[in-house]
Amino acid sequence: MHLSAHHPLVADRTQDSRLVQAYLGRRPSVPPVWFMRQAGRSLPEYRALRETSSMLDACLQPELAAEITMQPVRRHGVDAAIFFSDIVIPLLVVGLDVKIVAGRGPVFASPVRTAVDIARVTDIDPDTVISRGGPIVEAVEQITALLAQESERRGEPLPLIGFAGAPFTLAAYLVEGGPSKDHLAARGLIFRDPAAWEALTGWLAEVTGRFLRLQLQAGASAGQLFDSWAGSLAPEVYRTAALPASRRAVEIAREVTPPREATIERIPLAHFGVGTGELLADIATLGVDVVGLDHRVSIVDALMRMNAPVAVQGNLDPALLFAPEPVWQEALDRLLRQGRAASAHIVNLGHGVPPETDPDVLTAIVRRVHEAS
Amino acid sequence: MHLSAHHPLVADRTQDSRLVQAYLGRRPSVPPVWFMRQAGRSLPEYRALRETSSMLDACLQPELAAEITMQPVRRHGVDAAIFFSDIVIPLLVVGLDVKIVAGRGPVFASPVRTAVDIARVTDIDPDTVISRGGPIVEAVEQITALLAQESERRGEPLPLIGFAGAPFTLAAYLVEGGPSKDHLAARGLIFRDPAAWEALTGWLAEVTGRFLRLQLQAGASAGQLFDSWAGSLAPEVYRTAALPASRRAVEIAREVTPPREATIERIPLAHFGVGTGELLADIATLGVDVVGLDHRVSIVDALMRMNAPVAVQGNLDPALLFAPEPVWQEALDRLLRQGRAASAHIVNLGHGVPPETDPDVLTAIVRRVHEAS
Repeated sequence: MHLSAHHPLVADRTQDSRLVQAYLGRRPSVPPVWFMRQAGRSLPEYRALRETSSMLDACLQPELAAEITMQPVRRHGVDAAIFFSDIVIPLLVVGLDVKIVAGRGPVFASPVRTAVDIARVTDIDPDTVISRGGPIVEAVEQITALLAQESERRGEPLPLIGFAGAPFTLAAYLVEGGPSKDHLAARGLIFRDPAAWEALTGWLAEVTGRFLRLQLQAGASAGQLFDSWAGSLAPEVYRTAALPASRRAVEIAREVTPPREATIERIPLAHFGVGTGELLADIATLGVDVVGLDHRVSIVDALMRMNAPVAVQGNLDPALLFAPEPVWQEALDRLLRQGRAASAHIVNLGHGVPPETDPDVLTAIVRRVHEAS
Repeated sequence: MHLSAHHPLVADRTQDSRLVQAYLGRRPSVPPVWFMRQAGRSLPEYRALRETSSMLDACLQPELAAEITMQPVRRHGVDAAIFFSDIVIPLLVVGLDVKIVAGRGPVFASPVRTAVDIARVTDIDPDTVISRGGPIVEAVEQITALLAQESERRGEPLPLIGFAGAPFTLAAYLVEGGPSKDHLAARGLIFRDPAAWEALTGWLAEVTGRFLRLQLQAGASAGQLFDSWAGSLAPEVYRTAALPASRRAVEIAREVTPPREATIERIPLAHFGVGTGELLADIATLGVDVVGLDHRVSIVDALMRMNAPVAVQGNLDPALLFAPEPVWQEALDRLLRQGRAASAHIVNLGHGVPPETDPDVLTAIVRRVHEAS
């Protein structure tokens, strides 16, 4: 399946989509809505597809990744697809030994704790993520082709959002060797050996920036950097030990060469982290167009702290997915009103879709967002 | 061991302690310092004592609980003991079936999810925590006697801080059946059945308020309410679904009858939760004297958001315990300077002592706090 001829077409058309317009800070007449982790265990069709392959394998099988990415787009009518991937995929692609352990998450065969461990990792050429990134490119090409079909059916352009983890969160996984509650091994390393930490996160910025750029180059219309665990850092630590590498990853992603025939002015980038209320003034300096908020901070407070021309994305409390309809409707309507204070507002949850979510509630939320406007 | 004759004496003397003075908003010439979870796995003498008994058993064996409570006081020279207990102890005392599962935490035999489950729990008379609270009273009496000895040795009064969990965090444990990452079952119940939720947290306020009052009545000089998971709530949810029950627990704890011969004007109460930066304006209305901060929020921002005459406690980043000495020293000195903006500042970590902490670092921090002033 060779689809590269589609890029310019897709890229061009999605510029007028609700999502890309909002990501570029123009308020579309109908606000866009999508859900973090919309492709995933809340969908029976996802669980059926995933029965026969592991998470990381699924991410690297282009047809499977493409199909999984499309499932929520077809089912819920969301305004964007988000590339189905895992935060550790670029590290797997460059050759690190990592597996997803059920009930735990990604676990690395060798945690990276000392300067020697770090040198072993940073010796890998970051361009490896490109040279071995064939399955990523192919998946993105398949998705944009499928989105073009879906767009035709719906009569409106549908963009793909690229997916990548931020250097701090990736470093936390590497140093801990897997998920952890408070990332103390990683956060301790920041203080214990700042030079080694800088080398590690600098390298991760090169790798994850390229991973995102690869997706943009292959046809994704926007990108999102996930710094899941940034909220565990004190603001001054975030500023010195996490932000510089995130900013570098954003820079690298921005080096994407627009397809020849396209008239793209800018491929917008978004950022999301959990519990980042205290970090927003710093996150606003990252160079992204959109800042995602979790449910703990109000849009009003967030805009005040950022004081920057960014669009905001979020931040419906995922717990509302288990509320009676009138309760979540009222909260959603309030959120939509709050969003009007921003240059543009993209509706999303304050966190990923919980696996136990009734998918019909997500569909109903999409409908209400589209009708409420 | 009958020690009740000690209460008035102990209570009187500790009024002049650094900790109680600071808790009452008077700035002592030397700022007090203690550490959340100072009695625990970071100490080899604790690990030795705990070898033969389970966590919950240890909490209910007065001599053992007293000895564990005293260990960090003797070793580190901290300015207060914190009652060695577990957040679920009052629930165990009133008869619920709960065990600590290694590597996981407290697990309840039957999660409390429906209105029927909740009624089964709330049918228990909250006064049961008092009628069956003998081991708690005895432990507190033993601790205050041991603190009196230690005070004599040091030549300064040493208070005991009572310990209790806040209703929201206790409810989250009960509804989830144990620890969880995002407390979605509990947070969903808030929306799904607000009346049942109110009944549950209302009952928990009665129980945990009495549990704290029991300790104060038995000789503790101050109390702290731990709402470990409050930070998972959106501010408006905290305000309506968690704060009222916490306020009620504080009220109940305040009903303590001062010992006849004592001249106590007020037994100060503190509050602590993780990730509560967005909740501080609400927490400031709880009726406590001291607000604990985790390391994610600066004291300066916290004071601005609270705008109330409370003392602040915290908030050294626990990751600094793994930093070279000059690094934590500089951070500590900065923290001490920031603390001067508050009516009083009690030095503590932004979270509990990690088990892997080198205890000598804690001792060195105490020394520096006492010398820096």
